[in-house]
Amino acid sequence: MAGEGDVKLLGVAVSPFALRVRMALQMKGVGYEYIEQDLFNKSELLVASNPVHKKVPVLIHGSKPICESSAIVQYVDEAWATGGPSILPADPYQRAVARFWAAYVDDKVFPAWVAIMRAATEEERAEKLAAAQDVVELMEGAFAECSGDGEEEEDKDFFGGDSVGYVDLALGSNLFWFQPLHEMFGVTVIDAGKAPRLAAWAERFLETEVAKVVAPAPGSVVEYAGKLSARRLAAAAAAANK
Amino acid sequence: MAGEGDVKLLGVAVSPFALRVRMALQMKGVGYEYIEQDLFNKSELLVASNPVHKKVPVLIHGSKPICESSAIVQYVDEAWATGGPSILPADPYQRAVARFWAAYVDDKVFPAWVAIMRAATEEERAEKLAAAQDVVELMEGAFAECSGDGEEEEDKDFFGGDSVGYVDLALGSNLFWFQPLHEMFGVTVIDAGKAPRLAAWAERFLETEVAKVVAPAPGSVVEYAGKLSARRLAAAAAAANK
Repeated sequence: MAGEGDVKLLGVAVSPFALRVRMALQMKGVGYEYIEQDLFNKSELLVASNPVHKKVPVLIHGSKPICESSAIVQYVDEAWATGGPSILPADPYQRAVARFWAAYVDDKVFPAWVAIMRAATEEERAEKLAAAQDVVELMEGAFAECSGDGEEEEDKDFFGGDSVGYVDLALGSNLFWFQPLHEMFGVTVIDAGKAPRLAAWAERFLETEVAKVVAPAPGSVVEYAGKLSARRLAAAAAAANK
Repeated sequence: MAGEGDVKLLGVAVSPFALRVRMALQMKGVGYEYIEQDLFNKSELLVASNPVHKKVPVLIHGSKPICESSAIVQYVDEAWATGGPSILPADPYQRAVARFWAAYVDDKVFPAWVAIMRAATEEERAEKLAAAQDVVELMEGAFAECSGDGEEEEDKDFFGGDSVGYVDLALGSNLFWFQPLHEMFGVTVIDAGKAPRLAAWAERFLETEVAKVVAPAPGSVVEYAGKLSARRLAAAAAAANK
C-alpha cells in the first residue's frame, strides 16, 4: 500500500511546516502534485482533509490525508523507506534524541522568532530577539547529541550526521525566514558570535540541494510577512472599535 | 544496546506525562527503578538529566537520559520491540494517524482540562468546561480512524484496536485527573451524552491492568491540585503586591 497511489501536498510556499515536508519528499525522490493553499480563504479540500486543524501541510497519499508536519515527515520516512536516505536514524536512542530536538524546534524555536515579528515596539522587539537567541543557542549542544554517540567531540556537518536528517529538516525549514527577518528588522536570530556551530550549519544547510529546491522565491517571505502584519493590525483595530 | 542496562524513571505520581511512560514500560514488561520527583524543589538528577526543560518524565536507560513523554513512549516501543505488544501500529499510515491524535491530546485536550482547574470564577469554569468538552468530543471520530482502516464502522475497544496503543496511553493518562476534577468542581469532562463512545472507552481503559497498576492513590490527585492552586494564588498575590 505504502509507496503506491497519487501523492498530493497541500501547502503554503513560505510555511516552514510545509517546507520541511517538501524537503522530506525531495529526499525520498517522491513525485507529488503540489497544491498551494490560501490560508485567508481556505479551500474545501483543505477543510475536508484536515477538519481538526484546517492547517497546512496535508499530505494526501492515494485517498488518505495525513496531517501535522512531524507525523507527515515520519510517514514519508516510513512509507518510502527505501526511496532515499533515512530521515530518522535507525538506533532507538538516536531516534528519541532527534524527536526531542525536533519537538524543541516546534515548541520553542518557532514561537520565539514569530514573537520577534509580532513585537509592537522596538523595545519589545529587542527583548524578543534576545529571548529567541537564547532559545536557539541551546541547540549548539544538540550537534554532538544528535550526530554522534554523545561522547565524541568531533563535529558532524548536520544534526543527522554526514547528511540531512529529521532535526535538520525541523530547524532548517525555519531558516527560510531568518534572512527575511534580517531584511525587515535588522535582527540576526542565529548570531555567529554566540552560536558559531549553528551559524555554520545554517549556511551549509541552505546550500544543500534539498533546501535549494524548495526555497521560497526571493521577496516572497517578506511579502507574506507584510500581509500577516496588515491582518494583525486590522484585527486589533477592529477589536478596539468594538 | 537497547534492552540492556539499568532503567530508571524520574516521575511525579500524578503526572499524566509520567503515567503514560509507566504504562508503556508496564506493557513491555520492563523492570525499572521509579524515582519520585518534587517539582517544587527539583533534584540535581532531574536538572542534569533534562537540562533543557527540567521536567518529568525522564527515562534513564543505562547512562542515557531520554526526555519528552512522546519520545520516551516511542523509545520504549522501539527499544523493547519484542518485550510486549506493539504500542504503535506497524502500518505507516496508522502510525501517522496515531501520532496525529496523540499530538492532539497534548496540544488541545491537556490544556483544555487544565484551564478548568485554573478558572478564577464559576462563570469562567463553565466556559472552560464547555470548551474542554468540545475538544474532547472531536475524539469520538478518532476511533474508526485509529483502530480500523477508516472505512469500517465497527467499533473496537481501544484506539489501538483490540488492545491499548499509543493514543490510548496519551489520552488515558489524562483520565486519572477527570474523576478528581469531578470531585473538586462537579464537572464531567467526558460527557456520556455528548461523547458516548469515549465515555465507554474511558471506563474500559481504567479497568485495564496497565492502568490499574499505575493509578495514583485515591485522594492524591486532589491533594496535588490543591498544592498547585495554593502556589498559583500565592504567586498572583505576590505579583499584585509588587
